[in-house]
Amino acid sequence: MKILLIGASGTLGSAVKERLEKKAEVITAGRHSGDVTVDITSVDSIKKMYEQVGKIDAIVSATGSATFSPLAELTPEKNAVTISSKLGGQINLVLLGMNSLNDNGSFTLTTGIMMEDPIVQGASAAMANGAVTAFAKSAAIEMPRGIRINTVSPNVLEESWDKLESFFQGFVPVPAAKVAHAFEKSVFGAQTGETYKVY
Amino acid sequence: MKILLIGASGTLGSAVKERLEKKAEVITAGRHSGDVTVDITSVDSIKKMYEQVGKIDAIVSATGSATFSPLAELTPEKNAVTISSKLGGQINLVLLGMNSLNDNGSFTLTTGIMMEDPIVQGASAAMANGAVTAFAKSAAIEMPRGIRINTVSPNVLEESWDKLESFFQGFVPVPAAKVAHAFEKSVFGAQTGETYKVY
Ligand SMILES: NC(=O)c1ccc[n+]([C@@H]2O[C@H](COP(=O)([O-])OP(=O)(O)OC[C@H]3O[C@@H](n4cnc5c(N)ncnc54)[C@H](OP(=O)(O)O)[C@@H]3O)[C@@H](O)[C@H]2O)c1
Ligand SMILES: NC(=O)c1ccc[n+]([C@@H]2O[C@H](COP(=O)([O-])OP(=O)(O)OC[C@H]3O[C@@H](n4cnc5c(N)ncnc54)[C@H](OP(=O)(O)O)[C@@H]3O)[C@@H](O)[C@H]2O)c1
Repeated sequence: MKILLIGASGTLGSAVKERLEKKAEVITAGRHSGDVTVDITSVDSIKKMYEQVGKIDAIVSATGSATFSPLAELTPEKNAVTISSKLGGQINLVLLGMNSLNDNGSFTLTTGIMMEDPIVQGASAAMANGAVTAFAKSAAIEMPRGIRINTVSPNVLEESWDKLESFFQGFVPVPAAKVAHAFEKSVFGAQTGETYKVY
Repeated sequence: MKILLIGASGTLGSAVKERLEKKAEVITAGRHSGDVTVDITSVDSIKKMYEQVGKIDAIVSATGSATFSPLAELTPEKNAVTISSKLGGQINLVLLGMNSLNDNGSFTLTTGIMMEDPIVQGASAAMANGAVTAFAKSAAIEMPRGIRINTVSPNVLEESWDKLESFFQGFVPVPAAKVAHAFEKSVFGAQTGETYKVY
C-alpha cells in the first residue's frame, strides 16, 4: 500500500508518518520539504503533485493553515487565508485527487476541536473545520470505486501545548501519537463519512 | 426595531419578511431588488450597503448560492462559487456588519439540512453550511456589546418541493412560514451561538 501524506514534516504529520510507516509505504509532501513539494493553496501545484506521485491507495492531509485573530480584527482578507488553505486547500486535495486513488482508496483530512468547542480568536479556524467536516460527510456518499473519505478532529496537541496553552486554557491536550491512531483507523479501516474525534 | 433582511425577495426570504414585519421595520436587500441592492460576493458591495443603511438592530441573511454538482464533476472553480456566496458572502456580512449593529443587536444566517443529512450533488452546499454553522458558534463568544449570532438550518422547503423533490427523496419538506419562526426566535430571543434546526 502506498500512502501520500501531505504535511508530513509537521507536529501532527510527523506522528502520523511514524504510525503509517509501520504498515505501508509513505510518500511525504510539504510546502518546503518531503518527497514531493506542494502548496495546497494552489490548484496548479496540487495537480503537479498528483502527476508526480502517480497512482496511490490513500491521500492523507495533516496540513492546512488557519488565521487566528480576534473577531473584531478578522477581515475578509485575513479570513481568505483560511479559506484558501485549511478549508479550500484540503477540499481541493479531494476534488483533484480522486483519479489518483486506486479502487477502494481513501482520503483523510484534518479538522480540529475548535469547531465544536470554540476558543477566542478561533472563528476562522472553526469555519474551516466545520466546512471540511460537512464536505467529507457529504462527499462520502458519492465517492466512486469504493473510495472512502473521513476526517480526524484532534484536540490541541501535547506537542503544541507550550505555544498554545494560553489560547486553550482548560483543554486537556492529547499526544500526537494518539491522534495518529485515528489516521490509521481511517486509512486501514472500512468506514466512510466519519469524523474521528480525538479529544 | 430596524432589521436588515438580505435575500428578502426569495422563497425563504419572503416568508421571513412577512414574519418579521409584524413586529419591526424591515429594510429589504437583494441582488436585483429591495430597498437596497447588494451582491454578497463582493466586499465593496457589502460595505456600500452598510453605509447606505446606517445603524440597525438585526442583520438577517436568507440568501447565499451554492453549487449543485455531482462530486466527480465538482471542480475547484465550481466550488469557489459556493465559497464566495453562501459561505464567504454570509461570513463577510458578519465581519463587515458588526459596527452597523446597535448594542444587543443580532446576526442570523442561513444554512441547511444537507450539512448533516447529505444528498447526492450536495457536497459543496454541505461545505458552506458546515462552515457557517461552526463560524457562528465560534464568533458568538467574541461578539462585542451584547451582539448575538445564530444560524437557521432549514429542511427543504415545501415551496421548493416541485423543483427539488428528485434531489430530496424521502425528506419531509417544511413550510417556509415555519422556518420563519426560527428567524423570529433568533432576532427577538436572547440565545447566541445556536443552530436552529427546522426539520
Ligand atoms: N498542533 C495542534 O495542536 C493541532 C490541533 C488540532 C488540529 N491541528 C491541525 O493539524 C494540522 C497540522 O498542524 P501542525 O500543528 O502539525 O502544523 P505544523 O507543525 O505547522 O505543520 C504543518 C505542515 O503542513 C505543511 N504545510 C503548511 N502549509 C502548507 C501548504 N500551503 N501546502 C502544503 N503543505 C503545507 C508544512 O510543510 P513545510 O514544513 O514543508 O512548510 C508542515 O509539514 C493543521 O490543520 C492544524 O490546524 C493542529
Ligand atoms: N429553498 C429551499 O428549499 C431551501 C432549503 C434549505 C436552505 N435554503 C437556503 O436558503 C437560502 C435562500 O434560498 P431560497 O430558496 O429562498 O433562494 P431564492 O428563492 O433563489 O432567493 C434568493 C434570494 O437571495 C438574493 N440573492 C441571490 N444572490 C445574491 C447575492 N449574491 N447577493 C445578494 N443577494 C442575493 C436574491 O435576490 P434577487 O432575487 O434580487 O437576485 C433572493 O432575494 C439559501 O441559502 C438556500 O441554500 C433553501
